[in-house]
Amino acid sequence: MKNTQILLSSRPEGIPTESNFRLADSEISEKPTEGNVLLKNLYLSIDPAMRGWVSEEPNYLPPVAIDEVMRSVTVAEVIASNSPDVKVGEIVSGLFGWQNYCETPANTILKRIDPELAPVSTALGPLGNNGITAYLALTEKGQLKAGDTVLVSTAAGGVGSIAGQVAKAFGATVIGLTGSDEKVELCLNRFSYDHAINYKTCQNLTEEILEVAPQGIDLYLDNTSGSISDAVYPALALNARVVQNGTAAIASWEPTPGGPRRDRHILTKRLTISGFVLIDYFLKFAETTATLAQWYTDGKLNYEETITEGLENAPKALEALYEGSNLGKQIIKL
Amino acid sequence: MKNTQILLSSRPEGIPTESNFRLADSEISEKPTEGNVLLKNLYLSIDPAMRGWVSEEPNYLPPVAIDEVMRSVTVAEVIASNSPDVKVGEIVSGLFGWQNYCETPANTILKRIDPELAPVSTALGPLGNNGITAYLALTEKGQLKAGDTVLVSTAAGGVGSIAGQVAKAFGATVIGLTGSDEKVELCLNRFSYDHAINYKTCQNLTEEILEVAPQGIDLYLDNTSGSISDAVYPALALNARVVQNGTAAIASWEPTPGGPRRDRHILTKRLTISGFVLIDYFLKFAETTATLAQWYTDGKLNYEETITEGLENAPKALEALYEGSNLGKQIIKL
Repeated sequence: MKNTQILLSSRPEGIPTESNFRLADSEISEKPTEGNVLLKNLYLSIDPAMRGWVSEEPNYLPPVAIDEVMRSVTVAEVIASNSPDVKVGEIVSGLFGWQNYCETPANTILKRIDPELAPVSTALGPLGNNGITAYLALTEKGQLKAGDTVLVSTAAGGVGSIAGQVAKAFGATVIGLTGSDEKVELCLNRFSYDHAINYKTCQNLTEEILEVAPQGIDLYLDNTSGSISDAVYPALALNARVVQNGTAAIASWEPTPGGPRRDRHILTKRLTISGFVLIDYFLKFAETTATLAQWYTDGKLNYEETITEGLENAPKALEALYEGSNLGKQIIKL
Repeated sequence: MKNTQILLSSRPEGIPTESNFRLADSEISEKPTEGNVLLKNLYLSIDPAMRGWVSEEPNYLPPVAIDEVMRSVTVAEVIASNSPDVKVGEIVSGLFGWQNYCETPANTILKRIDPELAPVSTALGPLGNNGITAYLALTEKGQLKAGDTVLVSTAAGGVGSIAGQVAKAFGATVIGLTGSDEKVELCLNRFSYDHAINYKTCQNLTEEILEVAPQGIDLYLDNTSGSISDAVYPALALNARVVQNGTAAIASWEPTPGGPRRDRHILTKRLTISGFVLIDYFLKFAETTATLAQWYTDGKLNYEETITEGLENAPKALEALYEGSNLGKQIIKL
């Protein structure tokens, strides 16, 4: 049986582009070997973290090798099983890559998805890594509590769209930074933000933040780094916490880019800054997903998906993600 | 009675120099009013934090006003008392300023000093703010634990000289960064450092740190900021903690100086960076001083003092402090 895959063909300098990937056809057996399952991918995830996965610098996961299929969380259907634990027809999720089919040991399945609960694609976004990240980055690393004034960058993206709702559910005032007026409206109307600022069109971002948060920001979920964060630091309150969840605004870390030093803010405001990497919290995934699923069932969790059709469009969608053209979670539908 | 004082005459641009201060004589009564005491200063403290105190930017304490006596912790003798709680002859410590005499309410005395315990000047250094800072910055903010590899900048200074001994006492491996070969020897022979590096003469600071700490640094007590910290961040280990205790290497924060962005280190290594300000820990001062005093009594706490005589030399000593010319704690003896 033919399997079409997207392979990493070269390492990007900075943000990955289409030219770093290539399509390749290969053969895959219709009969998985002992203990394995054959999966048909239904949805592929497009994530900001992928930039780190294709970098040659060792990261929290080993780099994707050249000519290896691109790593990706996917939602897939089991179409053949040689494992007593997994049935044909089950919908599952795991790191099954940018490809049409995947043969894999049954124990690499990270999650079994209940298609009755919600559209299965939500396992890639609000009920998957994005939702879990938003929830745990704010509550575990960020020590989110009622009364906090919370600021989120990339507020209309996969993580940001859920972060606004998580912060609001915990009794915080939530401010979102995003890159278009359309996204500002989404933040206010769908993602529970109290205030949303278009950082691209505002005159002075620090002042606009302080206008809606005159006491300053208590908790900053930093998905961007770069000039957006440079504007946020002067608006942080005493004892503020910063959770570094991503660095989407930095095109390349090689060589290390410069920026204003933050040490004086850290010292005099007694900031606490920490880095959040989702896989460190693996043991909390099930519990967190259950909480988010309950919110969804109760009609209290809104989400947006930007769905692009066709495996071949995954690299372009990834490139576009760093330009911010997606609303909510970016997904490839096969 | 004549009282000579050192007043702040102008705000420095960056590091304070002699020219920002002036001597002034005034009259002080020999009979303190009801509830007050009259103190004769014996020793004045010279501290890196003074740069922040004379800056016009509000800090953790209000700025010293122009023409106001320079704020300073001092060790003083009570020479007259109009308070039932304080006796003539007692040795006390508090914020009694760069001046010969001070009339102050009895309840502004921060500490009564036992002259039998140790030379009373130690209340400004190892048994005072420096010792308490070293102890609490490492243990409270830094979560110091046995087996840690700890790095301290300004390792031979007032705080650093005690930090090495605190880290060692808790079972850590301790590396010091300092600015001369003489200080390297002091760090190794007197302040319990396992390794000490002269950052001014070494070829590649990151590599020299990694040579003595191949697994990386678990806890960095950052007293400097600037290019020293730029060299330390690439040598930090996974889950490392950074305690920002000072920014002595930055001449001016106005305008904000630039430097390499650290967000990628923060994210991928899951760093935790936090700012330490001593006065936040006021309730732990007595307990911490008691611990350090016990170490001293047991012959387990070494210290160095650089003692300069004469009130009029305080501004020059402060200027020299930022050039690193002191060994251990810099003190003015009156």
